[in-house]
Amino acid sequence: MAAVLRQSAKYSLSGRLTPFAGPVTALHSRNGRGRTALSCLVSNQRNSSSASKIKVDLDSNTGIAVMTLQSPPVNSLSLDFLTEFAISLEKLEMDRGCRGLVLTSALPKIFSAGLDIMEMYGKSPERCGEFWKAVQEMWLKLYGSNMVTIAAINGSSPAGGCLMALSCDYRIMADNPRYGIGLNETQLGIVAPFWFKDTLVNTVGSRTTELALQLGLLYSAPEALKIGLVDQLVPEDKVVSTATETMAKWFAIPDHARQITKSMMRKPTIDKLLSSRESDINNFVSFITKDSIQKSLRMYMESLKKRKA
Amino acid sequence: MAAVLRQSAKYSLSGRLTPFAGPVTALHSRNGRGRTALSCLVSNQRNSSSASKIKVDLDSNTGIAVMTLQSPPVNSLSLDFLTEFAISLEKLEMDRGCRGLVLTSALPKIFSAGLDIMEMYGKSPERCGEFWKAVQEMWLKLYGSNMVTIAAINGSSPAGGCLMALSCDYRIMADNPRYGIGLNETQLGIVAPFWFKDTLVNTVGSRTTELALQLGLLYSAPEALKIGLVDQLVPEDKVVSTATETMAKWFAIPDHARQITKSMMRKPTIDKLLSSRESDINNFVSFITKDSIQKSLRMYMESLKKRKA
Amino acid sequence: MAAVLRQSAKYSLSGRLTPFAGPVTALHSRNGRGRTALSCLVSNQRNSSSASKIKVDLDSNTGIAVMTLQSPPVNSLSLDFLTEFAISLEKLEMDRGCRGLVLTSALPKIFSAGLDIMEMYGKSPERCGEFWKAVQEMWLKLYGSNMVTIAAINGSSPAGGCLMALSCDYRIMADNPRYGIGLNETQLGIVAPFWFKDTLVNTVGSRTTELALQLGLLYSAPEALKIGLVDQLVPEDKVVSTATETMAKWFAIPDHARQITKSMMRKPTIDKLLSSRESDINNFVSFITKDSIQKSLRMYMESLKKRKA
Repeated sequence: MAAVLRQSAKYSLSGRLTPFAGPVTALHSRNGRGRTALSCLVSNQRNSSSASKIKVDLDSNTGIAVMTLQSPPVNSLSLDFLTEFAISLEKLEMDRGCRGLVLTSALPKIFSAGLDIMEMYGKSPERCGEFWKAVQEMWLKLYGSNMVTIAAINGSSPAGGCLMALSCDYRIMADNPRYGIGLNETQLGIVAPFWFKDTLVNTVGSRTTELALQLGLLYSAPEALKIGLVDQLVPEDKVVSTATETMAKWFAIPDHARQITKSMMRKPTIDKLLSSRESDINNFVSFITKDSIQKSLRMYMESLKKRKA
Repeated sequence: MAAVLRQSAKYSLSGRLTPFAGPVTALHSRNGRGRTALSCLVSNQRNSSSASKIKVDLDSNTGIAVMTLQSPPVNSLSLDFLTEFAISLEKLEMDRGCRGLVLTSALPKIFSAGLDIMEMYGKSPERCGEFWKAVQEMWLKLYGSNMVTIAAINGSSPAGGCLMALSCDYRIMADNPRYGIGLNETQLGIVAPFWFKDTLVNTVGSRTTELALQLGLLYSAPEALKIGLVDQLVPEDKVVSTATETMAKWFAIPDHARQITKSMMRKPTIDKLLSSRESDINNFVSFITKDSIQKSLRMYMESLKKRKA
Repeated sequence: MAAVLRQSAKYSLSGRLTPFAGPVTALHSRNGRGRTALSCLVSNQRNSSSASKIKVDLDSNTGIAVMTLQSPPVNSLSLDFLTEFAISLEKLEMDRGCRGLVLTSALPKIFSAGLDIMEMYGKSPERCGEFWKAVQEMWLKLYGSNMVTIAAINGSSPAGGCLMALSCDYRIMADNPRYGIGLNETQLGIVAPFWFKDTLVNTVGSRTTELALQLGLLYSAPEALKIGLVDQLVPEDKVVSTATETMAKWFAIPDHARQITKSMMRKPTIDKLLSSRESDINNFVSFITKDSIQKSLRMYMESLKKRKA
């Protein structure tokens, strides 16, 4: 574990969680809820956003869509990013020509750095609540997707980035010991919420989760394979191609039987959040807006700046 | 996993799930419920059945009963078979001279091919419901048995055959990589119900179950050992003798303490089905009688016929 | 498993569960409940107890307390011992200078032999109930502790001793194959209650727990590492020093984030007992006072005496 922790410290200091994600455009409709809201947000997004944070390529021959995260410097999950993600995912979900989704990153060395700290630092409670709702939405949509979802993890994937990978059906990671993955929230003084925890427990079991979450562990790719946090390691330049090839095995199973089975496995976990969504938002907002937590975040960001300087 | 899947494809095409299980005799009492019904069914069975599908040998010296499944060609779990199984099990359960049960097969290369497809294809909803109730009964009795139950898996054991093995306390399998075991229902376009899933989760954990069920994986004997789907591999001719020898370890524990402990572990899973038995039957019947599912089954059976020809 | 069982038989015959724990002083306040009761018990304890069964050393520089169990011959969990344990733990819990706890034994070859059989044999129902309440209290306090808790297991740790270790955050065991650890209650004809079971399931998963509890397995240190029952093996003379060194990794995480995370993981299990504490006591008392169980205990104690002679 010493090695893992050293690894972890190195990662968390290398600026993967960026405090420099740039100004956040207030695209999010305040009164929006559910699908209607999202449709409405689509037009907002398209009108106001200069460049797309996510590239979507759907191959109508294979039925495989590749979503490439391309939001420099580290694919932080900002409100903008999450909104675009939810819209893109929903479109694919409703497209009968799409059976499988590969999630990957266009950026070097990073899959996604997770939740954008700037969305949690110095923001109003209302804004924090909107942000958290969007984080919930991302997970609800991805963990509950009817498509076959494969994460092609071609870089590090801490915190919310790890959650995104965990929400897929299968995880293929670049065989690079310098890439780390894990729910390392406690290292920042914050806490992974119960549904992050549930998703990890469903993947690696209760005991590994307890250690991973309490210590905020980032596992190197080989370590992640060993504990079952990822399913397969391949050379970095084969991550996406292996993901698309792997789809064949999943497409060999009749969709309806696979989907019912997937829902049977994941529905109880999803229902837990659905039945307590508001209180989960309230918990997050009251926690993150505490002075002590804001101070923790500021200290963390300052430590990142110093290391960069 | 490629190897597993290739293995799996081979198995599913080799006719293990037989469409040729012969005509099904309508022995099942329509108004029968619970123990009374079974007692009544015993006499029906004994009167009308020409040959027993299950041989039971109880050694009064050791307290070990060996149940040998002997229903050619592949020990399919037909309504007849399940009824005889439930009766035999109940008799042993009530016999104070019997403390342990070894389950094995008299047929070459196959433990049990699982649910008889012919019981699900082209049958009336009522008949399907009776069949499903008998499948439930098999699991409830075996998973909740007070005896020490050891599966001596001397051949392949897909789908319902796997469930039967999973319901025992311990699984010893023939060390033959050509034998497969797993809940491969989705390969047929059908879905393992929640209590099959729960039984697998209790044995190999949540993540392995998710992969196994979604992909309908059949694991080779060595793979099954690796993921904990079986507990021990021994040479094929030692499977039954190892099972009876293993009983000694279990008999060394006072029965009452072992039984209370077993019940503590399994009761919550059993209670889940008991509290939703009717809706589980209704779900099965409405699912299996759908045109699309009947078509899936027909296609599967035709593919088996072709491979045989 | 043959090796494990042989090991187990050897252990259970070597007198680790002592019937010679000496007379039990009736310190326990009958009307005492919760914190008030314990505070009141503190003074009782201090007034009447000649020698302390537990040594506590708190290093105010490091914030680490070492609790050394020193109740010869085998650190049996008697009512006295449990009462002193609960008081000591509560004091540390309320001491802001203490962030971490190391649990270890002063006795050779034994961490703790578990529940004192003498507290369960030939005692009045009332007394049995008091004892069981104290066992519950030990677990509730330790499993739910806000401190980082590390078990430095420098000897065998069957039954209740294993529970104590399982309730910590991390387990370091002496790398000695002659030391055994496990919930071996069924070997004595008694049954681990549901919260012992839940604690083990949370640590090693459902299937391993089922086997471990039904067969009353004691695992050798290397076997315990393999199944995840302990986290690390080190040479016997390094167990405590490794435990204190390991604290640094845990102290690197902000306390509040770690504590909320720990609570999120363990609260559901703790709440299960809290909501059924009285019925759990009643169950224990009615079980343990049965003639057949008393006979089992007597036979077990006699077998220990014979082996000693």
